[in-house]
Amino acid sequence: MTVLTEVLEANQAYAAAFGEKGSLALPPARQFAILTCMDARLDPAQYAGLKEGDAHVIRNAGGRASDDAIRSLVISYKLLGTKEWFVIHHTDCGMEFFTNSVIGSLLANSLETAVLRSDGFTDIGEGPGSEEGKYIHWLTIENQTQSVVEDVQRIRRHPLVPSNIPIYGYLYDVRSGRLIEVPEATTAGVAR
Amino acid sequence: MTVLTEVLEANQAYAAAFGEKGSLALPPARQFAILTCMDARLDPAQYAGLKEGDAHVIRNAGGRASDDAIRSLVISYKLLGTKEWFVIHHTDCGMEFFTNSVIGSLLANSLETAVLRSDGFTDIGEGPGSEEGKYIHWLTIENQTQSVVEDVQRIRRHPLVPSNIPIYGYLYDVRSGRLIEVPEATTAGVAR
Repeated sequence: MTVLTEVLEANQAYAAAFGEKGSLALPPARQFAILTCMDARLDPAQYAGLKEGDAHVIRNAGGRASDDAIRSLVISYKLLGTKEWFVIHHTDCGMEFFTNSVIGSLLANSLETAVLRSDGFTDIGEGPGSEEGKYIHWLTIENQTQSVVEDVQRIRRHPLVPSNIPIYGYLYDVRSGRLIEVPEATTAGVAR
Repeated sequence: MTVLTEVLEANQAYAAAFGEKGSLALPPARQFAILTCMDARLDPAQYAGLKEGDAHVIRNAGGRASDDAIRSLVISYKLLGTKEWFVIHHTDCGMEFFTNSVIGSLLANSLETAVLRSDGFTDIGEGPGSEEGKYIHWLTIENQTQSVVEDVQRIRRHPLVPSNIPIYGYLYDVRSGRLIEVPEATTAGVAR
């Protein structure tokens, strides 16, 4: 069965038992938002206990406080009333295994998927590639704890973020499923 | 109970029954990615039938093909091997109820949360505000079908996106839980 067929069949089963969920309101009922990584192993609804309708979930490569994540967070509170935010990065994140320079070179060499070896990502495919990757800031991560701290700080000092929104910094451990607080981040996220 | 306590308690319960999930590999097992909206009513794992480890999930306000979403998608295939992508917007999206100009003015007036009335979002709070919102492109949506088509097209023509990755365009109906194909988008997403 193809992925597309599988997704549509799973969706049919979900919709068949949709029930009360069809009348949920637009604003998040529990008035909070989570910014986290796109990593396939992370299911924020599961690891943070969310039902449909509870909370905004923003996800990108790394769970980084990109301009786009901040766009989403500002819409989240200004128009839809969230009052506290979580920034949740995780252990064993793919963003730790390369740099701007590495992915720029890999993409210039070939658009085919690279493989992760002990010495980092390596191309096995041959061209065509594109130099375009050298013009993107990939927001890679050198140290997970530090990236949580920096991202909370970036959000905290943004001129469109109200001073009274608490921002909690956490790491998700992909081996245990546990959320581990990054206290320096949470402190940096405390309302001024 | 506060949101923070609730989230941490839910996480403890989740981690206590984590089991085999602790040994999942970094690359998505089912080799696909979903780009969808941060909306609280959407749970992509539920509506598309994802288990932990299956697929990348990228979410922002609107599920838009922002530069940051494209950064994430390129990492998704180039380094982590996804081979097909879904772009899934949804009915009753908050992004349909304002424009760049509206949110720019609201934020200039006050950083407090506005309310959604029949004539649109209205401020009930009083300053301080910030003019900074006028310098952001909010990627609002005028027509959901059209936004799916445009976003699939934007991803399709990006120089870092290989020509053979299929991109499927769908709308999620928040009243029924159903995924509805946007055929023009899927056609636009077909491998060249």
